Amino acid sequence: MKNVVLASTSTLHGDTYLSYLLPVIRELFAGIPEVIFIPYARPGGISHDEYTEKVAAVFATAGLQVRGLHTFDDPAEAIRNGAGFFTGGGNTFLLVKQLHEQELMDVLRWEVEKGKPYLGTSAGSNIGGVNMQTTNDMPIVYPPSFQTMGLVPFNLNPHYLDPIPDLPHMGETRETRIREFQEQQDLTVVGLREGSWIRVKGAKITLEGTVPARIFQRGKAAYELEVGEEIIF
Amino acid sequence: MKNVVLASTSTLHGDTYLSYLLPVIRELFAGIPEVIFIPYARPGGISHDEYTEKVAAVFATAGLQVRGLHTFDDPAEAIRNGAGFFTGGGNTFLLVKQLHEQELMDVLRWEVEKGKPYLGTSAGSNIGGVNMQTTNDMPIVYPPSFQTMGLVPFNLNPHYLDPIPDLPHMGETRETRIREFQEQQDLTVVGLREGSWIRVKGAKITLEGTVPARIFQRGKAAYELEVGEEIIF
Repeated sequence: MKNVVLASTSTLHGDTYLSYLLPVIRELFAGIPEVIFIPYARPGGISHDEYTEKVAAVFATAGLQVRGLHTFDDPAEAIRNGAGFFTGGGNTFLLVKQLHEQELMDVLRWEVEKGKPYLGTSAGSNIGGVNMQTTNDMPIVYPPSFQTMGLVPFNLNPHYLDPIPDLPHMGETRETRIREFQEQQDLTVVGLREGSWIRVKGAKITLEGTVPARIFQRGKAAYELEVGEEIIF
Repeated sequence: MKNVVLASTSTLHGDTYLSYLLPVIRELFAGIPEVIFIPYARPGGISHDEYTEKVAAVFATAGLQVRGLHTFDDPAEAIRNGAGFFTGGGNTFLLVKQLHEQELMDVLRWEVEKGKPYLGTSAGSNIGGVNMQTTNDMPIVYPPSFQTMGLVPFNLNPHYLDPIPDLPHMGETRETRIREFQEQQDLTVVGLREGSWIRVKGAKITLEGTVPARIFQRGKAAYELEVGEEIIF
């Protein structure tokens, strides 16, 4: 049974790293001897080791062991042998480039499809969508493909932001950008606000957390999906 | 003599399309019988024809004729024969994909390097930089390359936005994103705020308009560049 959490953000404003997700982490990874952490998105250019240490410190408070994927000689083999996975946030282009270049995207997808628990935050959630083409990130590197795992049959826009009233700025709003994407592809996009996550248990996909999500479908008015509701189109 | 204007935005808040740039347009394209408009960035999915009509209406008020590049049977030949060029804003990925797929990026660069006047706004300014890797746009299509014209020896971030105080949002600031880019490439980035533009006359590059730009160089503190100052590193 597929067992996946895709969270908008790792950190809430004024809160510490992952702390609001700790109950979710405990439940998702219950009984997992070692969670493999995928640090490739490297927020702010942090090293793979530093990023893994940061995650391990938090997971330790939930009684969980963590090991960075970058420390294995054969990362594909590590994923095949792994019991559960967490991909952290940062830059989605960087993350996707590394997963494709090391041919890990499909290996990871396959293990997660089998039922091994997967947690993503931000960029790590983007790769749970059909492709990474609704990321907010800058294209700081050129990945060989924008395809991602497709653990859910739609795309995500993590850190979804409503238009800011009275901002005298002419850059596109998030909604405008998502609509431009849908001019190119007929794919639903879930605008996932900070504080909420998508929970996949087998065929059932629900919105969890504290704030509604905004749903964009081509040619239809956007609408709000409430916490606890199923995400079905 | 290179004769280029790269503007942060086409439109100022509360103003009409291109109106604040009209004096610049008059000067840049003085004596040009027909300006070729490159509509490929298609903001909000507008058609090439509609976008060109919108531009032509404004240019007419400055006594200038406009023709859309998409209306020529042979766009490369049209660029080689063209007297001046304007690339409008929209989605940079879409623009760059079309220019590369039609093999127009180098053709356009070559004509502009020869001295034919070029105006870019937003996405049209991004392609004046070394590459498009500091765009704010969503990767709604997959271009064959992120390389752009390199009319200036640095990258641009149009619509540059300072951090918004008191915003309880954890998505990266523009500065953080630019710094993540510079972890990957040692390339200066000019954060171009709305209201200002880069003016290239031969070897001289200056900041023009109404607001300072923010300059990012790898490993150095960011600093403000005032209007009228030369952009030299």
